[in-house]
Amino acid sequence: MANELYHYSVVSSLMEGIGESGIPYKLLIQHGDHGLGTFRRMAGEMICLDGNVYQMKSDGSIVAIDSSAGTDVAPFAMVTRFRPTLTTPVLFSNKQDLSDAMTKLFPRTKNRYLAFRVDGLFSKIAVRTADGQRYKHEKLRELHKRQTTYEFTNIRGSLIGFRSPEFLQGVSVAGDHLHFISDERDRGGHVLDCVSDGEVQFSGAVMSTIHLQLPEDDEYNDAELKLDSDGIRVVEG
Amino acid sequence: MANELYHYSVVSSLMEGIGESGIPYKLLIQHGDHGLGTFRRMAGEMICLDGNVYQMKSDGSIVAIDSSAGTDVAPFAMVTRFRPTLTTPVLFSNKQDLSDAMTKLFPRTKNRYLAFRVDGLFSKIAVRTADGQRYKHEKLRELHKRQTTYEFTNIRGSLIGFRSPEFLQGVSVAGDHLHFISDERDRGGHVLDCVSDGEVQFSGAVMSTIHLQLPEDDEYNDAELKLDSDGIRVVEG
Repeated sequence: MANELYHYSVVSSLMEGIGESGIPYKLLIQHGDHGLGTFRRMAGEMICLDGNVYQMKSDGSIVAIDSSAGTDVAPFAMVTRFRPTLTTPVLFSNKQDLSDAMTKLFPRTKNRYLAFRVDGLFSKIAVRTADGQRYKHEKLRELHKRQTTYEFTNIRGSLIGFRSPEFLQGVSVAGDHLHFISDERDRGGHVLDCVSDGEVQFSGAVMSTIHLQLPEDDEYNDAELKLDSDGIRVVEG
Repeated sequence: MANELYHYSVVSSLMEGIGESGIPYKLLIQHGDHGLGTFRRMAGEMICLDGNVYQMKSDGSIVAIDSSAGTDVAPFAMVTRFRPTLTTPVLFSNKQDLSDAMTKLFPRTKNRYLAFRVDGLFSKIAVRTADGQRYKHEKLRELHKRQTTYEFTNIRGSLIGFRSPEFLQGVSVAGDHLHFISDERDRGGHVLDCVSDGEVQFSGAVMSTIHLQLPEDDEYNDAELKLDSDGIRVVEG
């Protein structure tokens, strides 16, 4: 269904470095045409737009994934059949500006998800790309230390992203999480900052229905995924 | 589909006392025949077994809900089409014993959900029932202070429950969460302790697919639901 979120695995699992197994791309794209994720052993950043999947690698290269053929898997991904309910020009001088604009465009949605997309000319896009695990189960915090960053100027492309509720941190990434890919499909990554060159086209939709698929393989099953939780246990114990 | 979990709202919302709105019972039971939940303004404990819904109130009375007729709503509920994949006799001298038995019966499932049911004769069942909110948005922690407790001895009935992953605390209740209802449908509540009288019948199933429905009403949208989350933000910011 349109604007329902298919959520494969949880961010807490990625944090623990669970990156060997996952959902085959060809199954993933049956659930959505718009989204984000990562690749086996966290080798780069995944972006999915208009049903096409791209791998944005730390060497700066972009690989178009043939998701019908590949047997390779994504250990984490979020996708939706994106059907924007609101489309409007926006103007922003940094990532926080864009975030503030979205909060105004979608009032009373902080406890639900947003899917969004921004298309146009950007005067600046700063990205990072994950380098991939150097050993099995290397944690995301370690990978983060050697991320590669790029800055693009005067570039046409698309931002693809999700806003996730604060209280679902650990399942998703709380707040705004967005990836970028150029119109030429030759530049992109996980967005650290973005500046629109004049007005660009924003489109978005609220998502209230989440299909969370927990992995079933032993790598996931054996991971130690934790969350401190005394408060709830007091009243529900 | 069998053994998929339909999850209406999140425990963090209940904790904040969001109890005026919810899912109509007749919609809820389209998603499952086995489950737990609560009622408008947290008036008692919900148990759903074999597709029948009961309200277990703090005065000790049990009301069979006509879910086809009612327009009333549940602010929180978890239900599944329960089709046990494992059925076996069990023996336990307290709730922890039962929990330990389940851990042995279902190895490598700690990061997924379990649905379970125990039927038979119990030498002791200790329950509590929530009293209901005395004012709008009274928090669960306050209700908890005046819960009513009951102890039943030599009683036939059913335990209906779920085990939820530790890292999903706040979405669900981490660990085991079970309600009891007697065969006579005249006693029950949220289980604090349970002792089997000899062997009783355990049945269970793993659940990996979760359909999380976030509410769309203003009461939910305006609630302040929080979870501290610095770690993930460091690597995903």
